[in-house]
Amino acid sequence: MGNFIEQLSSKQLIEVERQLFLYTQGVQEIIPTEDLKNKIAKSVLLNRPLKIKLGLDPSAPDVHLGHTVVLNKLRQFQENGHIIQLIIGDFTGKIGDPTGKSIARKQLTDEEVKRNARTYFEQFGKVLDMEKIELHYNSKWLSLLNFEDVINMAGKITVARLLERDDFEERLAFGKPISLHEFFYPLMQGYDSVVLESDIELGGTDQHFNILMGRHFQEKFGKEKQVAMLMPLLEGLDGVEKMSKSKKNYIGIDESPQEMYGKAMSIPDELMNKYFELATDLTTEEIKKIKEELDTGIFHPRDAKMLLGKTIVRMYHGAEAAKQAEEHFISVFQQGSIPDEIPIVEWHGESQASVIDLLIQLNLQNSKSEARRMIENNGVRINGEKVRDIQLRVPVTNDLIVQVGKRKFVKIKM
Amino acid sequence: MGNFIEQLSSKQLIEVERQLFLYTQGVQEIIPTEDLKNKIAKSVLLNRPLKIKLGLDPSAPDVHLGHTVVLNKLRQFQENGHIIQLIIGDFTGKIGDPTGKSIARKQLTDEEVKRNARTYFEQFGKVLDMEKIELHYNSKWLSLLNFEDVINMAGKITVARLLERDDFEERLAFGKPISLHEFFYPLMQGYDSVVLESDIELGGTDQHFNILMGRHFQEKFGKEKQVAMLMPLLEGLDGVEKMSKSKKNYIGIDESPQEMYGKAMSIPDELMNKYFELATDLTTEEIKKIKEELDTGIFHPRDAKMLLGKTIVRMYHGAEAAKQAEEHFISVFQQGSIPDEIPIVEWHGESQASVIDLLIQLNLQNSKSEARRMIENNGVRINGEKVRDIQLRVPVTNDLIVQVGKRKFVKIKM
Repeated sequence: MGNFIEQLSSKQLIEVERQLFLYTQGVQEIIPTEDLKNKIAKSVLLNRPLKIKLGLDPSAPDVHLGHTVVLNKLRQFQENGHIIQLIIGDFTGKIGDPTGKSIARKQLTDEEVKRNARTYFEQFGKVLDMEKIELHYNSKWLSLLNFEDVINMAGKITVARLLERDDFEERLAFGKPISLHEFFYPLMQGYDSVVLESDIELGGTDQHFNILMGRHFQEKFGKEKQVAMLMPLLEGLDGVEKMSKSKKNYIGIDESPQEMYGKAMSIPDELMNKYFELATDLTTEEIKKIKEELDTGIFHPRDAKMLLGKTIVRMYHGAEAAKQAEEHFISVFQQGSIPDEIPIVEWHGESQASVIDLLIQLNLQNSKSEARRMIENNGVRINGEKVRDIQLRVPVTNDLIVQVGKRKFVKIKM
Repeated sequence: MGNFIEQLSSKQLIEVERQLFLYTQGVQEIIPTEDLKNKIAKSVLLNRPLKIKLGLDPSAPDVHLGHTVVLNKLRQFQENGHIIQLIIGDFTGKIGDPTGKSIARKQLTDEEVKRNARTYFEQFGKVLDMEKIELHYNSKWLSLLNFEDVINMAGKITVARLLERDDFEERLAFGKPISLHEFFYPLMQGYDSVVLESDIELGGTDQHFNILMGRHFQEKFGKEKQVAMLMPLLEGLDGVEKMSKSKKNYIGIDESPQEMYGKAMSIPDELMNKYFELATDLTTEEIKKIKEELDTGIFHPRDAKMLLGKTIVRMYHGAEAAKQAEEHFISVFQQGSIPDEIPIVEWHGESQASVIDLLIQLNLQNSKSEARRMIENNGVRINGEKVRDIQLRVPVTNDLIVQVGKRKFVKIKM
């Protein structure tokens, strides 16, 4: 690739700088930034869109805010006229794990792959304009490769280079088996970039090795090398671990407005800025202002977090749903003066219980007569709503909040 | 595989023990001997031949005595009714070296592969009955494998296991690159055994890793496991290095009777027994007798070596040629009393020279007139033959022996 920056008019250069600034916001690592700038320059100069690649695992189609870090970045590219290439890694999915050891890598049928892809598509539609998306299934080209092609591909990479991947290096060092076929997953991902001639590949920082493989293979196959853009990994609600389905610390983008809002309110204060930056569509200026007002104390953390919750709900459910979720939260938690810290009680009873049994089993009342009296006096609320029927049967669910009088609260954990 | 030994009649057991004794002669390692015995027992019991596999590199079809170590062992199996499977590794040959670094692994055309295979065939015919041979080209099955098949194959072996191969281990340790495709050469060889359901695979001890790969893969693919039979590597004429074409220390089985005999006479005494055992068709008893007679001094090493030379020539050119080669050797070297140690002189002149110039340049004569006189007096021999023509032009070749009078000898080195 020649140097396109040198050929730009000053007006074009301003446009290149504008895009470069936008795309580099919130990114953890760009390899290398010069190439990114030059690719943008080429695109501006030739009025030709860049191809921005994102690979997807077809076995785990539940999309949560952790995924949207990358999707939000893709949207920026899309809004500037670039082409988004979504690759469903169905070839890998259809093979499964030949050693049979990994349950996660079980073999998927064509139908499962298609269904999972549809699920992705529906969810991604909340962030991206799916009509402008290029969707690819990598089985289209990978299933056509024969043994000779594979040997030629394998001839373009050394064993030592593959063993540099952290997990491989560690497993080899500790005598944990690496099955040879595992070496091919990064190779396939790299080869996808060769076939699609991607300009940029996005991923989390955990994709560092695999995305650079694409750059390596493009060079070996005589193509222009892609730029690796690595996004930070978003910690989940626990504030520690990477957001993931298995850790149950996620906000799914298909969750209801109330769930979403409530979960957003449980994010640790120190992660708020990161969530604003990586998980919302607010502009750099808006985020900067929030940060300053928080620092100077103009903005109360609680209010900032409510803005975060409202923004996230608005992104996936619209402005009206966001407003309602906020109102619901205020009516239940704030007007009722629910304290920040509610004692959590594990529930080992039936999945349905009469309200009286519930109060006794949770040790909120000592006797049935006492409980009955409290309900009759309008002193019992479940999820903020007054209980008016003494016979009420309550479906017991996770995070159900039971309140007696003004100060006694319990949150149920199943 | 069940235990077939237990099911044998005593007569059958004697036959099994006879074959087992024969096949194990001169073998360096058998992995494992129990399986070999059980396979022979199965063959005797069910009256079904065993399949004995030998893989061949299609790029180096010049067969020398080093190769015949394995071929002689195959002949024993063939003479006992078993099936010899020769595999031309043409798939590998056609791929060549995708990194382009190895000159030895240059890509072969279909035609070259076929021609090399024919060359093997002609030469092997001197040891084996080629009409009873099964000839296979492994491209027949390997070229049909697709990426998914390759992944499945790769799923049956770990990276650590492959890195146990001495050369891989060493290269990784010393930071010398191993291209990933190199891992597939032992895999292919192993997969060949799966397809052909080989019972035994023969090779030199340097094939230890690759042949065990066949055993490993057969098990992983649910087949009966082959036995590895590893033959010692035959040192070349220098007595140190493994016989090989590149080392120029070999006796090719296509060489002329005189060359063959002469080269055999240059084998170091201490290797004679090994050559008798590995490179001739003499029986165990005959070899044992020669060894004893050498040890007790009944047999002179020079005579033993002449028997070795004569035996080798007889194997590849027949009894008559062997007799002539011996007579030639005696007439030239022994009757002429050529000493054991002949001074070697490096030749820097033209590739042809007049006999007179030759004598002077080799410092065997001081003047042209002196040289002329010596020739006229029948005092000059070249390779043992009297020079009768004073004008003779001599093609100067390596190992050419020039003799003046009874005691002056010179051997030319180019």
